[in-house]
Amino acid sequence: MTPENGKEKKDFDAEAAGMKRYRNGEIWEFEDDMGVSDGDGTGVLLGLDGGTTSTVCICMPMIPFSHSQLQSLPILARAVAGCSNHNSVGEIAARETIEQVMADALSKCGSKRSLVQAVCLAVSGVNHPTDQQRILGWLRDIFPSHVRLYVRNDAVAALASGTMGKLHGCVLIAGTGSIAYGFTEDGKEARAAGAGPVLGDWGSGYGIAAQALTAVVRAHDGRGPSTMLTSSILQTLGLSSAEELIGWTYADPSWARIAALVPVVVTCAEAGDEVANKILLDSVQELASSVKAVVERLGLCGQDGKSAFPLVMVGGVLEANRRRWDIGKEVMNCISKYFSGVIPIRPKVEPAVGAAWLAWNFLMKECHKG
Amino acid sequence: MTPENGKEKKDFDAEAAGMKRYRNGEIWEFEDDMGVSDGDGTGVLLGLDGGTTSTVCICMPMIPFSHSQLQSLPILARAVAGCSNHNSVGEIAARETIEQVMADALSKCGSKRSLVQAVCLAVSGVNHPTDQQRILGWLRDIFPSHVRLYVRNDAVAALASGTMGKLHGCVLIAGTGSIAYGFTEDGKEARAAGAGPVLGDWGSGYGIAAQALTAVVRAHDGRGPSTMLTSSILQTLGLSSAEELIGWTYADPSWARIAALVPVVVTCAEAGDEVANKILLDSVQELASSVKAVVERLGLCGQDGKSAFPLVMVGGVLEANRRRWDIGKEVMNCISKYFSGVIPIRPKVEPAVGAAWLAWNFLMKECHKG
Repeated sequence: MTPENGKEKKDFDAEAAGMKRYRNGEIWEFEDDMGVSDGDGTGVLLGLDGGTTSTVCICMPMIPFSHSQLQSLPILARAVAGCSNHNSVGEIAARETIEQVMADALSKCGSKRSLVQAVCLAVSGVNHPTDQQRILGWLRDIFPSHVRLYVRNDAVAALASGTMGKLHGCVLIAGTGSIAYGFTEDGKEARAAGAGPVLGDWGSGYGIAAQALTAVVRAHDGRGPSTMLTSSILQTLGLSSAEELIGWTYADPSWARIAALVPVVVTCAEAGDEVANKILLDSVQELASSVKAVVERLGLCGQDGKSAFPLVMVGGVLEANRRRWDIGKEVMNCISKYFSGVIPIRPKVEPAVGAAWLAWNFLMKECHKG
Repeated sequence: MTPENGKEKKDFDAEAAGMKRYRNGEIWEFEDDMGVSDGDGTGVLLGLDGGTTSTVCICMPMIPFSHSQLQSLPILARAVAGCSNHNSVGEIAARETIEQVMADALSKCGSKRSLVQAVCLAVSGVNHPTDQQRILGWLRDIFPSHVRLYVRNDAVAALASGTMGKLHGCVLIAGTGSIAYGFTEDGKEARAAGAGPVLGDWGSGYGIAAQALTAVVRAHDGRGPSTMLTSSILQTLGLSSAEELIGWTYADPSWARIAALVPVVVTCAEAGDEVANKILLDSVQELASSVKAVVERLGLCGQDGKSAFPLVMVGGVLEANRRRWDIGKEVMNCISKYFSGVIPIRPKVEPAVGAAWLAWNFLMKECHKG
């Protein structure tokens, strides 16, 4: 049996199971034991941030408060699961992860699907309207028809987490993957990068680590300069030679496993290793050029290039820390040379909260229309 | 069920089946119908070339002829199958492909396992002694104990196909993957590249095509110059926008599917597209630097750098053709600037024949020792 056949088989099983998913799936059994009728309980919102490393779901009460009160809204429950990027783990695994994490969040706060008013699912791997439609289809199978459903790229939730749910400005995410995403105040949007490891996402954690691994192989071959990365990476992975790296690399296709080597690269760069320093400097350029492309396409910087706009920065690669080599700071230095009006924002809440705020905003807009 | 669970399940099934693999496996049922006893028939050799795109097995008669007669040795049977690189398709699929293609070759010429004198299995993905040991283990399960078994990287068979089975000189393979591999006359060996897509195999067919896809994404984002590659690749793949490329890329992890875009890149380069030209020029540099690293480490060019040594060139990316952009010719131009004694060889037989010749050579050496 080839892996393809295996995959088809699983698709078939899941489809068959999907027929009775709503109300009967094991994931939702907790609802039967709740003993509350649909009329009981408060309405809730679900905000979900699905990245390539982990997926977080937040449950908030749906109170028709004013926008300025959003920040003081309590979090009723928070649930965490693994990767939900369908490009990385496949569609079936992504769907199950998303369904499970939503069920966990509702179960934790004693709520259930019939009380949900709106869901904002912000997941990486949403790159095209067809991705959006497919995921909306999954959600339609799970929730009753009155629930409002919104599907966006995870970058949109990250932006919202820094702008109190307002879609204006640019966000740069650099974790396992990287993407720049922006919105103008009148709703135009643009993105750059975020195309994954095969398509040149070199500023990401995966990109940094893959280049470090490549540098080790090149040094070993005699095609590149020797580097401290060799001993540091081999020691971290418990390998005894550079040849073993090839087997290690392909033994598990997880992008997050490769990206987890970023701290080793930073440590080598801080210790003065030139190869590691060049990899980090290149990644800074890559990340800055992604932001530049989005800002210019949307004209966020105004005609004179000096208008103010928020730049939200999110993700493990950009996080401020006490290290000497601060990738996020270097990226910001680079961008403020292009655009003097840039206002850097490091969100105080996680992207999943941004997704819940978005759900609230989208729902309020629809109510005002209606 | 996650894909990981699915894989474990398959491993388990295969292991259970493996208990009765020798003599009883379905693959070998043809042997029961042959009605010849083990004493009948001529001894044979199997030579197998397993690449990332396809796997070829050749069956030759085992006659203790002299080395100069090797070239006139008849091919009794030839069988073809898909990818057998365990790093690309996983261990179970690789093992099944290898077993099936050997059974097909023996069945085609009315031979069977008990008549096999020696097997040379030359497969990509053999990067470390542990890879070699694992694959020898598979073969031990399949063949009777008298059969001599040799496992090498597929580059070794490609070299042998150009040097009449003699392991001296350097070989450069550039197909879906790329690798440079060399031997001195006294048995020292070295290799460069061949570490697959994650580890910077940029001169390969996969590397060329992945860079072309990246260029399309960058042009679309506004991070790179616009290029003819956009319309050519989208048209070839039947896609209507660059956003759709991301979904296409990750829908199927096969390296060969990406590498199949190389002719599109060559066509664009020939039509004057600068981005496509730069990608091909970079790949020429990459391939030449791999050869240079091997030649220098082994001292194949002698102390004065001018000694004669064979350079065998193999693989779709290097094949001479009537195009104006001839990657193989450019690589050779580059290498002859470094090493004036290089003797380019384009083998007249395929690598699987080289593997069968190697089996013959290895067996003869053992006989002479004994």
